[in-house]
Amino acid sequence: MAEHKLEKGLVQVYTGNGKGKTSAAFGAALRAIGRDFKVYIIQFIKGGFDYGELYSVKHLPNLKLAAFGRGRFITEPQPPQEDVKLAHDAFELAQKVVNSGEYDIVVLDEINVALDLKMISIDDVIRLIQNKPNHVELILTGRNAPTQIVEAADLVTEMKEIKHPYAQGIPQRKGIEY
Amino acid sequence: MAEHKLEKGLVQVYTGNGKGKTSAAFGAALRAIGRDFKVYIIQFIKGGFDYGELYSVKHLPNLKLAAFGRGRFITEPQPPQEDVKLAHDAFELAQKVVNSGEYDIVVLDEINVALDLKMISIDDVIRLIQNKPNHVELILTGRNAPTQIVEAADLVTEMKEIKHPYAQGIPQRKGIEY
Repeated sequence: MAEHKLEKGLVQVYTGNGKGKTSAAFGAALRAIGRDFKVYIIQFIKGGFDYGELYSVKHLPNLKLAAFGRGRFITEPQPPQEDVKLAHDAFELAQKVVNSGEYDIVVLDEINVALDLKMISIDDVIRLIQNKPNHVELILTGRNAPTQIVEAADLVTEMKEIKHPYAQGIPQRKGIEY
Repeated sequence: MAEHKLEKGLVQVYTGNGKGKTSAAFGAALRAIGRDFKVYIIQFIKGGFDYGELYSVKHLPNLKLAAFGRGRFITEPQPPQEDVKLAHDAFELAQKVVNSGEYDIVVLDEINVALDLKMISIDDVIRLIQNKPNHVELILTGRNAPTQIVEAADLVTEMKEIKHPYAQGIPQRKGIEY
């Protein structure tokens, strides 16, 4: 059994409409890896397309990444059944990874969006948070974090958009936005 | 001469009192490295102490990190001359690195704090932004970004503290906060 890195893992949330939520989670992972932490990043509603992190994580030890998505934004108020299934698969893996206690940090990227769209159950996520092994740090990202998640978290940062170049008509750029 | 990765580099700012500013910059660096970007991170008012990123960056190709600091917080309204000197050294390197055009992304971590404490000249930084090579993306972090910086930037995110465990008396944790 590996030594636990944290005596008490907390629950961090990065939400809001501004840029930097997923990047902050990956940056936290990068910092932790420098301390020989084991990190697992599970991405909800992502994957199925090409993005920069997929390549860079290969360089890093002790970092696992699993992405569950079909490479498109979900805008419907009633998400397609196929996407709901993928969100469930992501959450199932999250439960397994968190409860195994084998990882010091588990990132649930964009889980707030899956919750906001009611693709997964808020009660299940709250239960996961409340029953997690004590030494595991959780990082939840995504806009529109539900109130119950904010209440259950120890640390919450809102990324607030003050100025954004998309308003100037600049499209997403490879290597910067994805 | 290496091919430029970006047609037009923008200026991003991460400011505010919340957690995740430096992490967002490192996360952006990580994403970009996955696209074979060259990234240079210059840290103002940091360094001289031990933190996680120092170890993890060694795993990553095309990433350089230089830190200028004495390992302590600067709280004085009139920062010690030695710290001012280090901030000037950091900015001198920033000018060299940006103007060389050799890096696709240059991160100026905590430069907003150095500006807020008047350790370096705001006019010099605005000049650097305005005259940078077109293809270079700049990322400036740190709380209290001066208005002139916000105006000169293309993208500004405010990290707003909604909830923070330090209020619960939890100290900084190795691998998480540093």
